[in-house]
Amino acid sequence: MRAIFIAVGSELLDLDRVDTNSIYVARRLREKGILTDMKVAVGDHVDNLSWIVKKACQRAQLVILSGGLGPTEDDVTREAVAAALKRKLLFREEIVAELEAVFRRRGMAMPEINARQAFVIEGAEVLANPVGTAPGLLCDEGNCKVLLLPGPPAELVPMFESVYTRHIAPAANHHVVARTFKLTGISESEADSRCADIYRRYRNPVTTILASPGLIELHLLGRSKNSDAEARRLTDELADKLRERLGEFIFAERDVSLPEVVVEGLQEKGLTLAVAESCTGGGLGDKITSVPGSSAVFLGGVIAYADALKTGILGVRAETLKRHGAVSQAAAGEMAAGVRRLCRASLGLAITGIAGPGGGDRKPVGLVHMHLSADGHEQGLRQIFTGNREIVKLRSEYSALNLVREYVSQLSADGGRQTADGKE
Amino acid sequence: MRAIFIAVGSELLDLDRVDTNSIYVARRLREKGILTDMKVAVGDHVDNLSWIVKKACQRAQLVILSGGLGPTEDDVTREAVAAALKRKLLFREEIVAELEAVFRRRGMAMPEINARQAFVIEGAEVLANPVGTAPGLLCDEGNCKVLLLPGPPAELVPMFESVYTRHIAPAANHHVVARTFKLTGISESEADSRCADIYRRYRNPVTTILASPGLIELHLLGRSKNSDAEARRLTDELADKLRERLGEFIFAERDVSLPEVVVEGLQEKGLTLAVAESCTGGGLGDKITSVPGSSAVFLGGVIAYADALKTGILGVRAETLKRHGAVSQAAAGEMAAGVRRLCRASLGLAITGIAGPGGGDRKPVGLVHMHLSADGHEQGLRQIFTGNREIVKLRSEYSALNLVREYVSQLSADGGRQTADGKE
Repeated sequence: MRAIFIAVGSELLDLDRVDTNSIYVARRLREKGILTDMKVAVGDHVDNLSWIVKKACQRAQLVILSGGLGPTEDDVTREAVAAALKRKLLFREEIVAELEAVFRRRGMAMPEINARQAFVIEGAEVLANPVGTAPGLLCDEGNCKVLLLPGPPAELVPMFESVYTRHIAPAANHHVVARTFKLTGISESEADSRCADIYRRYRNPVTTILASPGLIELHLLGRSKNSDAEARRLTDELADKLRERLGEFIFAERDVSLPEVVVEGLQEKGLTLAVAESCTGGGLGDKITSVPGSSAVFLGGVIAYADALKTGILGVRAETLKRHGAVSQAAAGEMAAGVRRLCRASLGLAITGIAGPGGGDRKPVGLVHMHLSADGHEQGLRQIFTGNREIVKLRSEYSALNLVREYVSQLSADGGRQTADGKE
Repeated sequence: MRAIFIAVGSELLDLDRVDTNSIYVARRLREKGILTDMKVAVGDHVDNLSWIVKKACQRAQLVILSGGLGPTEDDVTREAVAAALKRKLLFREEIVAELEAVFRRRGMAMPEINARQAFVIEGAEVLANPVGTAPGLLCDEGNCKVLLLPGPPAELVPMFESVYTRHIAPAANHHVVARTFKLTGISESEADSRCADIYRRYRNPVTTILASPGLIELHLLGRSKNSDAEARRLTDELADKLRERLGEFIFAERDVSLPEVVVEGLQEKGLTLAVAESCTGGGLGDKITSVPGSSAVFLGGVIAYADALKTGILGVRAETLKRHGAVSQAAAGEMAAGVRRLCRASLGLAITGIAGPGGGDRKPVGLVHMHLSADGHEQGLRQIFTGNREIVKLRSEYSALNLVREYVSQLSADGGRQTADGKE
């Protein structure tokens, strides 16, 4: 079974943001061995939309549309799909009654315009929308299922899941096993050259590599027509080989972020963390506090962007700055020790560097010094990152977090507790 | 003239990141009045790609492909387009010679595999790639131009620009004028309900609204077949009406971010800024330091995630926390004053709130107090934001930045200089 996803909305053609619906749906389909051949974004124009739906139905067995089911004139998905399938739109009184009830519960009268949402494509199954007003539709067109879903993710997800359970998963004829590797501290091309000769040999499992600054994900998907066990055996075989080549860079084998792994690790070992940030300007703290519950281990820290703050608050010696400069291993070490002391944290983590595009008179743009200070453990790391300002900041944050992860992971649970000083 | 953009690469079907190529190209086309009807992401499969190219050429006058021009077996764009147009692939010795020269300049021998990049679609113009190895191709197919560009943005942009100047812009028969409004402090639905009755009346200019947490953009595009002046008049007419309704929320009428406006404003007035962040955890500093040159006005600050840091470093009184709690206007005020004093900054800006999902026993999740402290100016702001942890953090950061923007914009240049205390 092959799928085509069509996102409807003129704003999608301009928008520089992620269409999370297509990613969510593609991932859920892949879990059943159904691959998405194509993703399309199309504006609110009946002609264009009708054209692509018609073509997609000739090509795929599953055509999923999101958006354009609202009550306004811009919402043309119902019309366009009806035209593509050469079917009538029928007005259904019972849907109007349901819509009126929804508005009544909100203490409002239904706006006249919402009656448009009561038009249904001939022969389609109407899908209830427990969250919003737009009902979904499911049409069988020859060998192809056409699914119309509302655009807001909060409405799309539960409606998709109900169709997934009732219609899609039962029709999928594959057993599928997925594995994920999350890596940091290695570039995409380096990861690729270390293991391409292995994963390229396999058509099953399929391997997908996703790279963003400081982070690489390998997704393996093994399929079998016979059994779960066979899909698992195939996937594990490749996973074991990849782990052998990439092990030292793998920080997780599940869907979890590096900040989450760090927060979990600190929590397990009963440690607390404080940060001293120069070039990252708060980005490191921002990543850590993106994790719900991070307040149990993260105390905070100092954004020491100006040198006066490095000396004035963190206690970096003026002599150190004069001799080695603010971007130096010595400065990073004193920043880490300073913030650890100031915040009474088990661990102090510091970043100082040149994010660019300016600066770096004698030192190269992209030069970053990091330092982790803990009880009986001082570790520095010097890197020269390539990329623009944003990318240098991100890579620095991931590298620094990885210092913490490596340190924490090698502590025994007991050793960890002995090291903690700021808690309990 | 209508365009269809096709991004090639299996990773695009899984990827949760932005395809910047399509956004860039669509924007450049729009500037000449050429609308992009559709954006497609398709995997590295000859059949799928060939199919959609064939259909696209029947529909649009401009079909632009990005990616799949590399040297490996995964790179199938040349093959697929040749199949779609029913043309041969011809091997061109002179391209091999050029590729060999590129590698020689890098001090390497050309890998055998790169010879694949010397295949050219019959009748196509070969487009030089000054940045990478993949040449681009431009084919005329009846009424339609098919443009094959390399995937990396650094290679795509200059190659696209050369075709744009020579072939696309001269063929566009519209005069186009664009206007941008950037808004903050207002929700999308609020903005829409304030002005939808105006912009919906106009088919020309076209209005596009883009919303992200804390930020709204209105893009107006006026077109005229006759003259620049007419396009300008049409656009200005709508822009004036919209400005009347939304003026107080507009922070820029050009393509600039709120942190950039804040950094510019501080620089103009000779002011410096320090931040005290609780729930945003460094995100505010991160946004400010994303602006190149921000070090001229941003000193840094304190991430006071734990209450002990609010009292210990920022000097918030224990009494205040006990009586009002850490999420209170009183705490925000003392944090702002504290960080301003500590960093000797002209302005102190503080955020304390409940980002969720946990916390908020007696106070609601999403409650955020902000405070700006300056010479003779104390201003608090209380908001209850909806959305998840990440969205509450982002909205808080934008709201706090907007406090600075409003304060700075009302200072006269002179008044500003008198207020500055930390600089010159």
